[in-house]
Amino acid sequence: MFVTFEGIDGSGKTTLLQTLAESMGECPLCLTREPGGSALGKRLREIVLDEHTKGLEASAELFLFLADRAQHVAEVIKPALERGELVFCDRYTDSTLAYQGAARGLDQATLMTLNALASHGLEPDLTFLLDLPVALAKKRMLQRKGTVCQEGRFDGYDASFHETVRAGFLDLAKRHAERFCVLDAASSLEELVQTAHKHLQARMDKKKAF
Amino acid sequence: MFVTFEGIDGSGKTTLLQTLAESMGECPLCLTREPGGSALGKRLREIVLDEHTKGLEASAELFLFLADRAQHVAEVIKPALERGELVFCDRYTDSTLAYQGAARGLDQATLMTLNALASHGLEPDLTFLLDLPVALAKKRMLQRKGTVCQEGRFDGYDASFHETVRAGFLDLAKRHAERFCVLDAASSLEELVQTAHKHLQARMDKKKAF
Repeated sequence: MFVTFEGIDGSGKTTLLQTLAESMGECPLCLTREPGGSALGKRLREIVLDEHTKGLEASAELFLFLADRAQHVAEVIKPALERGELVFCDRYTDSTLAYQGAARGLDQATLMTLNALASHGLEPDLTFLLDLPVALAKKRMLQRKGTVCQEGRFDGYDASFHETVRAGFLDLAKRHAERFCVLDAASSLEELVQTAHKHLQARMDKKKAF
Repeated sequence: MFVTFEGIDGSGKTTLLQTLAESMGECPLCLTREPGGSALGKRLREIVLDEHTKGLEASAELFLFLADRAQHVAEVIKPALERGELVFCDRYTDSTLAYQGAARGLDQATLMTLNALASHGLEPDLTFLLDLPVALAKKRMLQRKGTVCQEGRFDGYDASFHETVRAGFLDLAKRHAERFCVLDAASSLEELVQTAHKHLQARMDKKKAF
């Protein structure tokens, strides 16, 4: 089963992913992320974060994310699924649609074609969207000082950029309601994990039944 | 005017490009290449050459080349053309079609769409294809020892791979006869430069006349 975690920076994806993983007991897990889930991805992640402030073209950035995904799916995700592992992935194809599509203005239909090519057709079984007001996400990011300095994402973009990304994610959740589970990321971590765990378990039981 | 140089490794593209450039007198020139024509491209070039032997997925490799192109066209080629320079580029969209398409088997129509996106719609005015039998190209590559060690391209692929690339280029030249000028790369450099110079001059005069 393939589960993805989406949301704007500072929405708490990574914390939920890790805490939810700890709650899964003996279940064999593969925890990964995009960009940066493969050796190639780690190099590309450095470039994308580094070049963000140096005039990286929107389409160049897009192709770097797609290169990361193509390698990641083939080298990490598909093999883990074939071994029967539960895969938790921090960002995936929906991030491309929300960031490069909704926020950067690249054509959605083209992005869907590119996503299908880069993901070798692999779609998530379940996607958790951590939804949070941008002001709150920014506040959280500023509290994680080390991360902010390293990633520098909130420096380069204004709130309206992140608002557009947030709206993009919510729109995707509406259009793919059968796959998405929208979580109120302002809730306590305990509540979030409980809700997410319940949804995940239900989805796993349903998948087993087929 | 935008001129590209295509051909298999060892066909002498770079040498012709440089020697032809020297023959252009006072004409303002921009000499560049793919991958590696921008700061981003230099980092990607290292990755592509480095990862060639380490299981880089065909589609991941493709997206890296496209990222390089997207940045290169926007940052280097278009500004040079806008300044009125004559741009000579070592490899461009046709390399994607010959290597990733003909040789690696990715779908040609998809590649053309991706090329159009990455190149921001910029097509060459003239393309020199240096055509050479693979055995002769390999012999030349082995003579340039430093380059072979650095690039290592002929180590990873057998002759049939390069034969397919060569056939792919010749097919492109046939389909875009108005843009291509096929040169017999087994000729002396002097002859090659003379022929290429004549073609280029004719094309420049024709472009001026419009």
